[in-house]
Amino acid sequence: MQVEIINIGDELLIGQVVNTNASYMAKMLNNNGFEISKISTIADKEKAIEVALLEAMQRVEIVILTGGLGPTKDDITKTCLVKIFEGELEENILVSKHIENFFAQRGLPFTQTNRSQAYLPTSCEPIFNHVGTAPGMVFHKEKKTIISLPGVPFEMKEMMPKVVHILKEKYELESIVNKHFIVAGISESFLSDMLEEFEQEVGKKNISLAYLPEGGIVRLRLSLYGGEKKKSEALMQEETNRLRKILGQYCIGEKEENIAEIIGKKLLENKQTLSTAESCTGGNIAHRITLVSGASAYFKGSVIAYNNEVKQRVLKVSSDTLEKYHAVSEQTVIEMAKSSIEIMNTDYAIATSGLAGPNSDGTSVPVGTVWICVANKKGEYKTFTTCYHTTRENFIERVTNNSLFLLLNFIK
Amino acid sequence: MQVEIINIGDELLIGQVVNTNASYMAKMLNNNGFEISKISTIADKEKAIEVALLEAMQRVEIVILTGGLGPTKDDITKTCLVKIFEGELEENILVSKHIENFFAQRGLPFTQTNRSQAYLPTSCEPIFNHVGTAPGMVFHKEKKTIISLPGVPFEMKEMMPKVVHILKEKYELESIVNKHFIVAGISESFLSDMLEEFEQEVGKKNISLAYLPEGGIVRLRLSLYGGEKKKSEALMQEETNRLRKILGQYCIGEKEENIAEIIGKKLLENKQTLSTAESCTGGNIAHRITLVSGASAYFKGSVIAYNNEVKQRVLKVSSDTLEKYHAVSEQTVIEMAKSSIEIMNTDYAIATSGLAGPNSDGTSVPVGTVWICVANKKGEYKTFTTCYHTTRENFIERVTNNSLFLLLNFIK
Repeated sequence: MQVEIINIGDELLIGQVVNTNASYMAKMLNNNGFEISKISTIADKEKAIEVALLEAMQRVEIVILTGGLGPTKDDITKTCLVKIFEGELEENILVSKHIENFFAQRGLPFTQTNRSQAYLPTSCEPIFNHVGTAPGMVFHKEKKTIISLPGVPFEMKEMMPKVVHILKEKYELESIVNKHFIVAGISESFLSDMLEEFEQEVGKKNISLAYLPEGGIVRLRLSLYGGEKKKSEALMQEETNRLRKILGQYCIGEKEENIAEIIGKKLLENKQTLSTAESCTGGNIAHRITLVSGASAYFKGSVIAYNNEVKQRVLKVSSDTLEKYHAVSEQTVIEMAKSSIEIMNTDYAIATSGLAGPNSDGTSVPVGTVWICVANKKGEYKTFTTCYHTTRENFIERVTNNSLFLLLNFIK
Repeated sequence: MQVEIINIGDELLIGQVVNTNASYMAKMLNNNGFEISKISTIADKEKAIEVALLEAMQRVEIVILTGGLGPTKDDITKTCLVKIFEGELEENILVSKHIENFFAQRGLPFTQTNRSQAYLPTSCEPIFNHVGTAPGMVFHKEKKTIISLPGVPFEMKEMMPKVVHILKEKYELESIVNKHFIVAGISESFLSDMLEEFEQEVGKKNISLAYLPEGGIVRLRLSLYGGEKKKSEALMQEETNRLRKILGQYCIGEKEENIAEIIGKKLLENKQTLSTAESCTGGNIAHRITLVSGASAYFKGSVIAYNNEVKQRVLKVSSDTLEKYHAVSEQTVIEMAKSSIEIMNTDYAIATSGLAGPNSDGTSVPVGTVWICVANKKGEYKTFTTCYHTTRENFIERVTNNSLFLLLNFIK
């Protein structure tokens, strides 16, 4: 069953906001057996909304829109929907009460602008909003279903399980089987050469193979659409077993996990703990680790030493080392990692020091240089260095990925 | 001049990857006077690419595609482009040499698969890729320009200045004037009531006003398309002066800056420094601060104390406080903030402690509870508490925004 997503919002078209709604919705729908055939991002303009929706309705049975449901004048989705699906805008008493309660619970007055959010097309079924004020709307037109959701990410997220439920009740779904592999230590092009024969063979069985390079690793996805669910799963099982053998040591994970999740599982299994001592990554490694639910069981903390004073005072890096070798050096990150293990009393530590740029620090160390060290309680360690010619943001992201990858191999 | 962006990639449609390319490109093009009228995300399928591109070419003069240029079998953009723009795929010797050098510099062999990336449609002008192997391509068809870029974000980013240059040489641009305000301490609906009259008046002058709520703040954007640049700027200046007066104390920033940038400027101005002591935010506040280029001039570091042991050992929070009040308490964050100022020797500190969830810690503290403290060297401090019923990721994001906002007001 194909679905199109339409995200409405000028803020998306001028690049002020990254469209995280689309990927969240797509993932959830895909996991539930729906195929997203297109995602369109369009302006807060009546004409644009109308054209995009009518076009999408010609191509697919299900269209989900987000955005343009707020209480302000630039929110015009409802006006468009009432035109397309007929009926008129009318206050929905249940929704009105619901919003009034929402404000009352927060000790806020219920203004006319707030009340306007309870005016809905008479042709829709509302989806109550438990974390905000704009309700979602469901329209059924013959076999087609059109659903309009708020653009505020956590409001949309709160409604998505309800959306999936509504759609699953109405439609019979085609099976989709996806399998994921995470590959590291080999570039996309070499990997492609290695898998050429495998890819041709699975292609004959309708299984497609996709490559997704991501900051030093490559994600592989095998997909099989249609057919009888059990048969598809059995076939996929067979082929993933084969792929696993071909990938050998390069495969560092399966499923759609990220490296932080894989590390978390390993540490939990081993009953071991981790800390970080970060300079150039500025807390991003700790952030990635603590995004994983349950991280407090193995992650104890970090010292972010963004300047030399903190490296000396808190992380006890010797001034000799900093003077003789520079803060961005192998010696410095080794001392940082060892000290982190001691201060935080952990089994493992990651330490990073680099020059993210864009500005030089005035020494001879080139912008983009980074040193990473992973160490354990026994005093063993491994270091890595490289130089990334890229943006500040991407530098931080790549050093973070590389550090996590280095640790994963070190734990193994 | 209107532009459409088409992002090709199954990984985007299954939600495996967030489409950050679209916003990056849109922002850069918008800042250079182009209007993005639509962004489409489509599958790695020949039919989908062909239909989307031909449709877009009927609507606008400029279409920019990303994705499907890798060396693997699922990368089919080039095959589609050669069909649409005629000619054939032929090895481009200059590009071939360029890629060969790219591998040689990294001590890697130049395989047949690598060489395949130098095969380009004879009808295109290549854009050399200095950070990867897939070249970009520019096609001119009558007045229209179609540009195909790699989907790997940092490769696309490296080519975008060149893309903007090519487009600016060919087209005469309409003026676009955008102005931004960051508003805090007032909800979207109250703000909307407050600005009702202003919005009607500027509407008559073709200036549109957009509201963008974002984790506790609201961004406002005034846009004026078309007209003579200087006149538009003068008119916009007048109206922003008026809006500034209406917003008064609620306005915490102008331009498209984020809160971390505003704080950075303030601290630089005052020659003051900052540190953080983070529990539930796990380094995300430090990460947001260090994303700003030049942060090392005012940000010294953090202690991330993800468990009580570290809170006691490193941050010197007393065991009495932790036992009597719980780690998620006003007393704890006050001690954390004060200790951070002492350990890091800074003028200001932010401290956070909360239960991100989804799991409870077994005590009576509800999941979603957070305490934040901002403090200064003089021993003054301000605390804030709330409870967010949301996802783990959104919890971290909102606590981060709220902490930065609290600090900004505290510095003022």
